[in-house]
Amino acid sequence: MAVLFVLNRYNASDWADMMRERAPDLDIRLWPDDVGNPEDIRFIVAWNPPEGELAKFPNLEVIFSMGAGVDHLMKDPALPKVPVVRVVAGDLTKRMTEYVVMNVLLHHRRVALYDSQQKARAWTERSQPAANEVRVGIMGFGVLGQDCGILLRDLGFHVAGWSNGRKHVEGIESFAGGAELDAFLGRTDILVSLLPHTPDTDRMLNASLFAKLPQDGALEGPFLINAGRGKVQCDADILAALNDGTLKGASLDVFEEEPLPADSPLWAHPQLVLTPHVAAESSPVAINDYILDQLRGYELGEPLSNVVNAERGY
Amino acid sequence: MAVLFVLNRYNASDWADMMRERAPDLDIRLWPDDVGNPEDIRFIVAWNPPEGELAKFPNLEVIFSMGAGVDHLMKDPALPKVPVVRVVAGDLTKRMTEYVVMNVLLHHRRVALYDSQQKARAWTERSQPAANEVRVGIMGFGVLGQDCGILLRDLGFHVAGWSNGRKHVEGIESFAGGAELDAFLGRTDILVSLLPHTPDTDRMLNASLFAKLPQDGALEGPFLINAGRGKVQCDADILAALNDGTLKGASLDVFEEEPLPADSPLWAHPQLVLTPHVAAESSPVAINDYILDQLRGYELGEPLSNVVNAERGY
Repeated sequence: MAVLFVLNRYNASDWADMMRERAPDLDIRLWPDDVGNPEDIRFIVAWNPPEGELAKFPNLEVIFSMGAGVDHLMKDPALPKVPVVRVVAGDLTKRMTEYVVMNVLLHHRRVALYDSQQKARAWTERSQPAANEVRVGIMGFGVLGQDCGILLRDLGFHVAGWSNGRKHVEGIESFAGGAELDAFLGRTDILVSLLPHTPDTDRMLNASLFAKLPQDGALEGPFLINAGRGKVQCDADILAALNDGTLKGASLDVFEEEPLPADSPLWAHPQLVLTPHVAAESSPVAINDYILDQLRGYELGEPLSNVVNAERGY
Repeated sequence: MAVLFVLNRYNASDWADMMRERAPDLDIRLWPDDVGNPEDIRFIVAWNPPEGELAKFPNLEVIFSMGAGVDHLMKDPALPKVPVVRVVAGDLTKRMTEYVVMNVLLHHRRVALYDSQQKARAWTERSQPAANEVRVGIMGFGVLGQDCGILLRDLGFHVAGWSNGRKHVEGIESFAGGAELDAFLGRTDILVSLLPHTPDTDRMLNASLFAKLPQDGALEGPFLINAGRGKVQCDADILAALNDGTLKGASLDVFEEEPLPADSPLWAHPQLVLTPHVAAESSPVAINDYILDQLRGYELGEPLSNVVNAERGY
C-alpha cells in the first residue's frame, strides 16, 4: 500500500519527509511529482487539493484532512466517496484553547487601552468587571469548543455553548439549534466562533447576528472572536459593526479571503486583533503521529475516529 | 465599637460609604476628618497609612490590610502589635490568575510580533512551540501562585513553584528555599513573581538572578512577569537585561517607584508590557464583604484568617 501526501502549501515536502522518518516501512509519496502508479494509492493525506485531483485514485480507501476543518475537501464536487478523517489531535485542541483564552482575556482586561496608555506614559487605573460578570458564548461546541469553555469557566467566566445538538458540560449552559440561537446571542458579551464552514454557517456572522448581541453587558458592548473559518463571517459587516459600535472589538484569525488582501481596511482597525490563521497551528509531529496512529489502527481492522459526516459537512 | 477606614488613596470615602451600606449597624468612621474619639476605635481598615498614624488608637484590636500585600503597613516602625489581616478574597485571586495567564500567553503566542506584522499588513505564519515545551516558574507559591499554576498546568504548560516551604499541587513541581533556587531558575522559560516585599526579597529580581535563566528554552530566551511588588525588582537591571537579550521580554505591573515616573525608559521599551498596578485590582464589594465577614466572626469569638506572620512579613 502507498500513502500519498497532497498538500497544496509551501512546506509539503517537510511533512512527507517527517512521516517517512517516523514510519520507514510505509511507501510515502508526494504529490504532484512523486505520485507513481495511481492504483497503488490507498490513503491520501490532504490539504486544499485542487478540485478533481483526489478522484484520480481508483483504490483510495481513506482521506485524512491535515487539519480540523474539512471545507477544503468538501467543496470538491468530485470528492471520492470514502471516509474523510479530521485531525483532532490534543495539540491542536490545546493550541485553539490558548488562542481563545488569550483573546477573551485581551478584551476583558482592556489590553488595547493599557497599551495606548503605555505609549502615552499615562499611569491610570481603569475600571474592570470581574470575570463572573462577563458572559462568554461559544458557537461550535464540539471537542475544541468544550475544551476552551472549561478553561474559561475555571477562570470564572459565565460560559455558554451553542451547537446543533445539546451538550452536557458541568457549569456551562448549552443552547441547541436555530430555535435557541437568539437566546444564546442575547446573553453573550464575548462571542467566540469555532464553527465549521458549511452551507448552514455560510456568512452567518453578519450584521443581523451582531445586532442581537447585548450592548448593556459588563464590558459595555460585545466582542467577537473568530478562530474557526473565515467564510462563516462577512468581513464588511464586521468592519461596519466595529465602526458604528455594534461590536466593541474583535479578534480575527480567519477571513473570507486568505491571505487577507493587503488593501483590506481590517488590517488597520484599532479595535481589531488580527492574526494570519495561526490560532491552532499545530505541531507537525503531533499531526503526523495522529494520522499514523489512525492508519496503523485501520490496517489492524480497528474503526476510524473523527470521521466526517458527509451530510453535515464536518 | 467603631471601625476606622484609613485609606491613603483617592477614593477612600467610596469604600467607607459602601461598608456603611452593607453594615448599617456598625459605627464606620473615615480618616482623617471623621475619626472622633480615638479610644472608640477597635478595628482599622488600612491602605498605605502615614507612619505612626495607627499608633494613636489605644484600644485597637485588629488591622485589616485592604489588599493582599502588607508592605504598606509593615514598613511602619510604630505599627501597633495587634493582628494584621491580609485580604485573600476569591475575587483578588481570580484577577491575579487572569493577569498571569494572559501575560504568559502574550509571550508564548508572540502577540507583540503579530501586532507589528498587523501594522505592516504582513500575512506571515511564525513558528511556535506547544505549551508542553514551555516551562513556567512561579516565585511566591501561596494561594495566588497555586491558583495561577493550576490554570497554566491545565493549559498544558510545565509549571513549577518556588517558595520557602515545599508545596504539594498535582502536576506541579515544588522547589523550596534558597538551596533550590538555582535549580528552579535553570528550568524556567517564563518567570512569574508574586513574591511579597520583605527584607529577604528586596531587589531579588536583579541581573545576577536573570543570568541564571536559560537562553536555550523553547521560546529562545526567558521572559519575566512581575505582578507582586515593585521593590522586589531592580528596574534598571530589567531594562539592561531586555537591552542585552538576557531577558527576551517582560510584563510588569509593579515598579520600584509608583506611579512609574513619566521619564522612565521602561514606558517605551518595545519588549515590555506595562500596566499601572492593576493586575489584581479587586471588586470593592468582594473586599468589603471579606473584611466584614472576618469582623463578624471575630466578634463571635472565631479565629481570624490570613493573619500576617510579623517575622516573615507576609
